[in-house]
Order: sequence, then structure tokens, then C-alpha cells
Amino acid sequence: MNQSTSEKIIHRLLNNDPFSQWLGIEVLSVHKGKVKLAMEVREEMLNGFRIAHGAIPYALADTTLAFASNSRNKLSMTLTNNISYLRKIESGDRLVAESEEVSLQDNYGVYLINIDRQDQIRLAVFRGTVYRSKHHVDERLP
Amino acid sequence: MNQSTSEKIIHRLLNNDPFSQWLGIEVLSVHKGKVKLAMEVREEMLNGFRIAHGAIPYALADTTLAFASNSRNKLSMTLTNNISYLRKIESGDRLVAESEEVSLQDNYGVYLINIDRQDQIRLAVFRGTVYRSKHHVDERLP
Amino acid sequence: MNQSTSEKIIHRLLNNDPFSQWLGIEVLSVHKGKVKLAMEVREEMLNGFRIAHGAIPYALADTTLAFASNSRNKLSMTLTNNISYLRKIESGDRLVAESEEVSLQDNYGVYLINIDRQDQIRLAVFRGTVYRSKHHVDERLP
Amino acid sequence: MNQSTSEKIIHRLLNNDPFSQWLGIEVLSVHKGKVKLAMEVREEMLNGFRIAHGAIPYALADTTLAFASNSRNKLSMTLTNNISYLRKIESGDRLVAESEEVSLQDNYGVYLINIDRQDQIRLAVFRGTVYRSKHHVDERLP
Repeated sequence: MNQSTSEKIIHRLLNNDPFSQWLGIEVLSVHKGKVKLAMEVREEMLNGFRIAHGAIPYALADTTLAFASNSRNKLSMTLTNNISYLRKIESGDRLVAESEEVSLQDNYGVYLINIDRQDQIRLAVFRGTVYRSKHHVDERLP
Repeated sequence: MNQSTSEKIIHRLLNNDPFSQWLGIEVLSVHKGKVKLAMEVREEMLNGFRIAHGAIPYALADTTLAFASNSRNKLSMTLTNNISYLRKIESGDRLVAESEEVSLQDNYGVYLINIDRQDQIRLAVFRGTVYRSKHHVDERLP
Repeated sequence: MNQSTSEKIIHRLLNNDPFSQWLGIEVLSVHKGKVKLAMEVREEMLNGFRIAHGAIPYALADTTLAFASNSRNKLSMTLTNNISYLRKIESGDRLVAESEEVSLQDNYGVYLINIDRQDQIRLAVFRGTVYRSKHHVDERLP
Repeated sequence: MNQSTSEKIIHRLLNNDPFSQWLGIEVLSVHKGKVKLAMEVREEMLNGFRIAHGAIPYALADTTLAFASNSRNKLSMTLTNNISYLRKIESGDRLVAESEEVSLQDNYGVYLINIDRQDQIRLAVFRGTVYRSKHHVDERLP
């Protein structure tokens, strides 16, 4: 498996993922176990206080987790995630998410994901735990 | 403050919340500190594996947290959340979220939220921690 | 495997666990996937503010998680835990922890654990995720 | 308030904290909002599988959180923590914990804490959320 296998998997995952498309997620970089994604917050992503709904940065982080963990072509599913919100996020903000693989075992992995604003201000921090199955990702994609 | 104040706040929050509207969130019941919400999973909410994106049940839980914690008319903001995924969620599934207020202090609160399917199967469990400010919610809504 | 197998495992786990012994953990009940434990907070378990160190209720919950998940005789190891503190805990308080198995899959499990005071006041809530290996617990114990 | 105020607070906290003393915690460095602590794992800290009980690295992280957040002389109490375990920890391992203050608001703070082994291998990652009260720490210490 080489770099372009990871890239092919990520692009097939995104092409088949209508919710990540609705979010407007762009792929900035892909390495085995590490991806960098971005998106822009739109008016329809706000909550009743006119700031981004908490699920918006979470969604970007969760897609980042799925892409990073599946980029090794071993089908990976999220068991549990946590997120801390550090600052308000507004319409028009560009969010950049980057993953770090802090543990990779045969059967599970742990990833840290930071969400930053375009001006490098940290907006949220996230940690996800995935189960890594015996299946290849590319067998399971349409 | 009485029951109908909580209901008015929740309805103003939802009416001003375009993302919760996109999700199709319905209010099933409102009590001070306790709400029950529902939504149906649509095709556009799926991920690349053709199951609900992890952010969809999270979004329902996060809206439930916001509504439950703000229902006491004290402006509350989420500090940190965690979620565990128990089963796959599919297009067409109806999700029901219900909150329990396990701690209510002057300055913060802790809420457990369960996400169940229409047939009472538990799909996800969530815990959120909010900061409770000195402001009234109804001063801050448009 | 029957009830007494679970009980034997729990007693061998506790007999070989010097830290749980230091805590003074007592086994109140054992069922497959569900245990109830108790302990009393001593002066040497306090922190600089003269309340129980946060690691004390955490330790009781983590032992409860280990006992509950290993009680099915499938070697289980903790991946990640979270805890929320609801009230101060003082020297002399008797803590009771009880587990609920919210997900049991071939390869992992999710457990909720509540920590209550002797007078039924809830002190902390905890959620743990374990990896379930292919090994039997009783092969791995001294 | 200067550096030596932080140092005085940390030393008074540790001197009054019997459980951190039982753990054998040493203070490696103290800055406002940032501390580095260490300890060595002893036989009496093991669990039934003869590895460190999960509460041991948690306890070191929780003390690190308490010291880092209180080092600014604003009384801070933990609301919720999470930890992921990356590797087994054995008797004789020396653990080093270092904090990063990712959010500092008037009323709350968020801290990341890494636990590493003496040879720089990462053993666990932890995130804590504290409530920051209006009180000074030094008013509350014996």
C-alpha cells in the first residue's frame, strides 16, 4: 500500500459521503494515518444564538477521524469521541482540522484532532477511539 | 418562571436555529432542565459507508443539551461533550433523545442524554457539561 | 460458564490486585457483566483541599469497569474513560459503584458506572470503553 | 503575582495532599498555568493483571491538572476528565506528566496532559475541564 492508495480511499470515502459534502469539506492533505481537512461555516450551520452549532466543528473532526483511521485501508469504526469547545465559531469562519495518530494497535486506534480557525486560533480539541476490523476499506465502498 | 416559560424559550431557540431545523428536530416534551426531542435520518445525513454520519446523533444530543440547559432561562454554553456509539444508524431511522440533569450548580451543569431508536433500542449515550452564565436566555435571543 | 465462574474471576482479580486492596474495595454483588463494589474514603486519600482526591472515585469506577468487563471470562482492557464529578467527597464517606453494560460486542464493550454515597446521593458518573480480546481471563491470572 | 507565588502554591498544595504524597509525586517544574510532575510506579500500585492500575496514571494527571489550574492563584475545581490509555505501564516505570493550558476563561479552563515514560514513550493522554471560582487558592489552604 502506498500514498496514492490512501488518497484513493479518502476520495472514494468523500465522494460517497453526502453529509461531508453538505458540510463542504475539502481535503488539504492525506498521509497514512494523518489527514488535514477544511470547511467554511455557513448561515445554515448556526444555532439559536447565531453561532455555529456545536455539531459543526464536531462533524468536521469526526470526518477527519474517519478519514485518518481508514486511510490505512483497514475498516475502522468510531467507538467514542470527546470534544472541548474553546471559542465561539461564527458564520464565515474557515475551519481547519488536522489529526495526530497517538495509538495504532492491531484492533484499535486513538486520534487527537485539533480544529483551528484560518488565523491559527484554536477553536476546539477532539479525541476519538476507533475499532479496527479485519476488513479492507476498499471492499466496503460502493 | 413556570413551565410555559421553558416552552417559550425552547420554541424561540428552535425557531432561530437553522441547523436544528435542517436536522428536522421535533420537540416531544419540555420541562425545566429536561427535554425530549426526535428527528428522522435522511439520505443526505449518511457517510461514505451508507450509515448515519456520527455527527447526526451527536447533533441531536447537542441540541437536546442546549435546550435542556437553557430551559431554566439561564444562558448556558457547552464546555465539553462525549459520546459513545452503540449501534449503526440507518436512513429512515427515527431517533429520540432524552436528557437527565445529573448536576445543577450555580455556575455549571452536567447532563446525560440517551439516543434511542423508535423501537427503544439504545443507539448512543452522551454526556455534556455546560457553563451557566448570569444572563437570561430571553435577553439574548433575537 | 455460570454465575460462580464470574464470582471466582472477580475474587481472583481482587486477590491479585494490591491497589484495589489498598483502596479497601469490597465486592457487594457480581453478575455476568454487572458488579457492585464499595469502599470507604480514608484521610490518606484526600488532596490539598482536604476532600477526596479525584483519583479515588475514579479508581473505584475503574476497578468496577475491570471487574464487570472481565466477569464474562473474556480478557478485557480499558481503552478510554471519562468521569464527571458532581459533589465533593469527604473522609469517612462510603462510596458505592454500580455498573451497567450498555454495549457488548465481540471485540469491545461500553459500561456506565455510577458512584453514589451511602445515602444514595450521586457523587460521580463514569463511562468506560474496553477492548475484548480472544483470551480467557482465567488463563492470565496468577 | 509572580513565578514564586505559583511555586509557593504548588508546594503548599503538595504538602497538604496525602494521596499525592502516597503516589510519590515530585515537582519537576512550575510556571503559571503549566506544571511538570513525575512519579515512579510501585508494586502496590498494580492491578490483578500485574500492570499499573488505570487509576495510577489518572491520579498523576489529575494532580497535574489541579496544580496547573490552581497555579494562577484562582481556586479551580475539576468538572470532568477523560483519559486514553496507549500502553501498559509496569512496576518500576517512571511517569512524567506535563500540562498544556488550551483554554483559560474567567470561569473555566481546559488542560491537556500527556503522560510519558522516562524514555519518552507516550503512555496516556488526558483532558480536564475546571471551574475557576472567585476565591484565591492561598485563602483556602491550611
